[in-house]
Amino acid sequence: MEAYLDNSATTRCLDSVIKIVEKIMREDYGNPSSKHQKGLDAENYVRAARTEIAQTLKVQDKEIFFTSGGTESNNWALIGSALANRRAGNHLITTAVEHAAVLQPMGFLEEMGFRITYLPVDNRGVADLKALEEAICEDTILVSMMYVNNELGTEEPIEEAAKIIKEKNSNILFHVDAIQAYGKYRIHPKKLGIDLLSVSGHKIHGPKGSGFLYVNEKAKIRPIILGGGQQKGMRSGTDNVPGIAGLGMAAKEAYQELDKKVAHLQGLKQQLIDGLKDIPDVFIQGQAAESGGAPHIVSVSFADVRSEVLLHALEDRQIYISSGSACSSNKKLPVSTVLKEAHVPKNLLESTVRFSFSSQTTAEEVAYCIEELHRIVPMLRKYTRH
Amino acid sequence: MEAYLDNSATTRCLDSVIKIVEKIMREDYGNPSSKHQKGLDAENYVRAARTEIAQTLKVQDKEIFFTSGGTESNNWALIGSALANRRAGNHLITTAVEHAAVLQPMGFLEEMGFRITYLPVDNRGVADLKALEEAICEDTILVSMMYVNNELGTEEPIEEAAKIIKEKNSNILFHVDAIQAYGKYRIHPKKLGIDLLSVSGHKIHGPKGSGFLYVNEKAKIRPIILGGGQQKGMRSGTDNVPGIAGLGMAAKEAYQELDKKVAHLQGLKQQLIDGLKDIPDVFIQGQAAESGGAPHIVSVSFADVRSEVLLHALEDRQIYISSGSACSSNKKLPVSTVLKEAHVPKNLLESTVRFSFSSQTTAEEVAYCIEELHRIVPMLRKYTRH
Repeated sequence: MEAYLDNSATTRCLDSVIKIVEKIMREDYGNPSSKHQKGLDAENYVRAARTEIAQTLKVQDKEIFFTSGGTESNNWALIGSALANRRAGNHLITTAVEHAAVLQPMGFLEEMGFRITYLPVDNRGVADLKALEEAICEDTILVSMMYVNNELGTEEPIEEAAKIIKEKNSNILFHVDAIQAYGKYRIHPKKLGIDLLSVSGHKIHGPKGSGFLYVNEKAKIRPIILGGGQQKGMRSGTDNVPGIAGLGMAAKEAYQELDKKVAHLQGLKQQLIDGLKDIPDVFIQGQAAESGGAPHIVSVSFADVRSEVLLHALEDRQIYISSGSACSSNKKLPVSTVLKEAHVPKNLLESTVRFSFSSQTTAEEVAYCIEELHRIVPMLRKYTRH
Repeated sequence: MEAYLDNSATTRCLDSVIKIVEKIMREDYGNPSSKHQKGLDAENYVRAARTEIAQTLKVQDKEIFFTSGGTESNNWALIGSALANRRAGNHLITTAVEHAAVLQPMGFLEEMGFRITYLPVDNRGVADLKALEEAICEDTILVSMMYVNNELGTEEPIEEAAKIIKEKNSNILFHVDAIQAYGKYRIHPKKLGIDLLSVSGHKIHGPKGSGFLYVNEKAKIRPIILGGGQQKGMRSGTDNVPGIAGLGMAAKEAYQELDKKVAHLQGLKQQLIDGLKDIPDVFIQGQAAESGGAPHIVSVSFADVRSEVLLHALEDRQIYISSGSACSSNKKLPVSTVLKEAHVPKNLLESTVRFSFSSQTTAEEVAYCIEELHRIVPMLRKYTRH
């Protein structure tokens, strides 16, 4: 049996996604910028995908811009906004537990002369809203906060944060990295007060190399990839038509029967948490410890078991999980800064792994994983606890 | 019959490319950054593609970095180099006939305080090397020149330019936009003195949304997309594994029996040029007028026929060509600046179209196009010449 429980790292493409990608590569290979029929045919796929996605967010089609993925979306949202709003101020705010695709561009902006405030989080990973309120000043031009933390599954208080920001100064842009949330939550940026929203295709069974940024029509932002003027000059480069169409398909399917899918994920999550109860010294991290948090992510510490050792022991049984953040290849950071920031006890930092589900995950897979953990964890502890 | 003669805008994917993209999306969907077997399997595709590509250029694997396409490659080469070498100087040189994906980032750098020199070209579109020599100064940090012009098919004097640059100052980086040349020419950056080379996947029957930048190991360049630290921190974001593997496959196939493929393209080009000889007032532009230039591009002016009108008339007969640059969607520029810069007479500027071939193009398609042009051009002229 195989159990792929690393869906927050990446997901398997839907058959419908593979089908449309293949069809476009084979038959409808035109360049959307070409003025002839083959160009128009290609453009129609892009337009249809834009509409599908806009509908899931209840925004306008023209507010959706395709990128090469979540990382580019985050880079663009931050650097593009900072460059466009420099005259209004040079201060940006984010949290200490953001993904590297937010933290690294923030570091770059710091180097360029911007000032960045990093909000602390509590022991579940929730950002301190009082600190947000205090941090906002006349110079603040943007706040960036993730919807769901990729390592802990923590839901950040997006709606409350937006209220605080917009009450202080409605011109401050609010960027939300929704890469782990889109397709699991109904997200309506207009209602929530979100100006910029980053999404990645391959986290929702869409193609790798696809993603989008929602940009509120009133938001001032500059492009960071320049050239032929595609996408109204906001993101140049020949549109990745198969990738975009696959992303549109994945987005549409993600929101079909969403409640049923979320209930399925919640069930798997509870099954895993319940199944681990009778293994001693196992600690559920984040909001999941209190039955909260994202439906598809469980962060678990197995005391006295190194996360990498557990990962490889499970891998031998075709069970795939993640130690730390799976979408970082930074080998210099063996210990997650997110876990540290979320006050995970020192002795558990290197013993914490992430299980993550998708709508394709089955209860059988989770049961198999629980069964193997009951066998493996005591065995591994024999070596460390003697 | 259908004749797709717009291969410089984009190409149809090879069956082998579609096959590997599909296989990876369906079966080998892991994230290369994941530490388990599914991650390693995915990483192996990326590694293999990098090796395939490096071999075509005779460079090291570690000098190949994957991007989302040619536009990103160009943006990165220019902006990344400028930011990394600012201390050495603030002057960059390019030509007046570059693609927008070079000219626009140059404009951005100008805004950031860099000084840009745009070299003039002759009436074939060839950059003025004397002007290059004169332009290089103590402050010069980078020269960017395209290998083949996308509108005219002009071959720029890359080797001679490199010699001039490196003799003046070996620290000046030489960037070459090879998007229309890779797969048609044997390009050996080390031998030619090229430090940075941009390539796009979809111009060589590879996937849209794929591309790479060759970066000489000694070149100083900063990443422009930051995050999880993938590709040694030079280009963050989850690797687009299917796109990368498809690109590797396309690169490999492009260089198999290259001479045979180029001879095929030369044959098609000559066939078209010869076939147009007995239509009056038809002018071949660029080096093709003297039997030179790229094997796959022919720029032709049909006096008194508006290019867009001809494009649509041919489209009605399932013949697909391009008016102006096909990879620009800038509607504000109906008249090509490249043609203007290359001294195409004023009366022909709006009467110039581009035919572009690939190894998939057949002599029958070209014959069909010639036949239709003999019918259409006189007919269209009836309306303009009465």
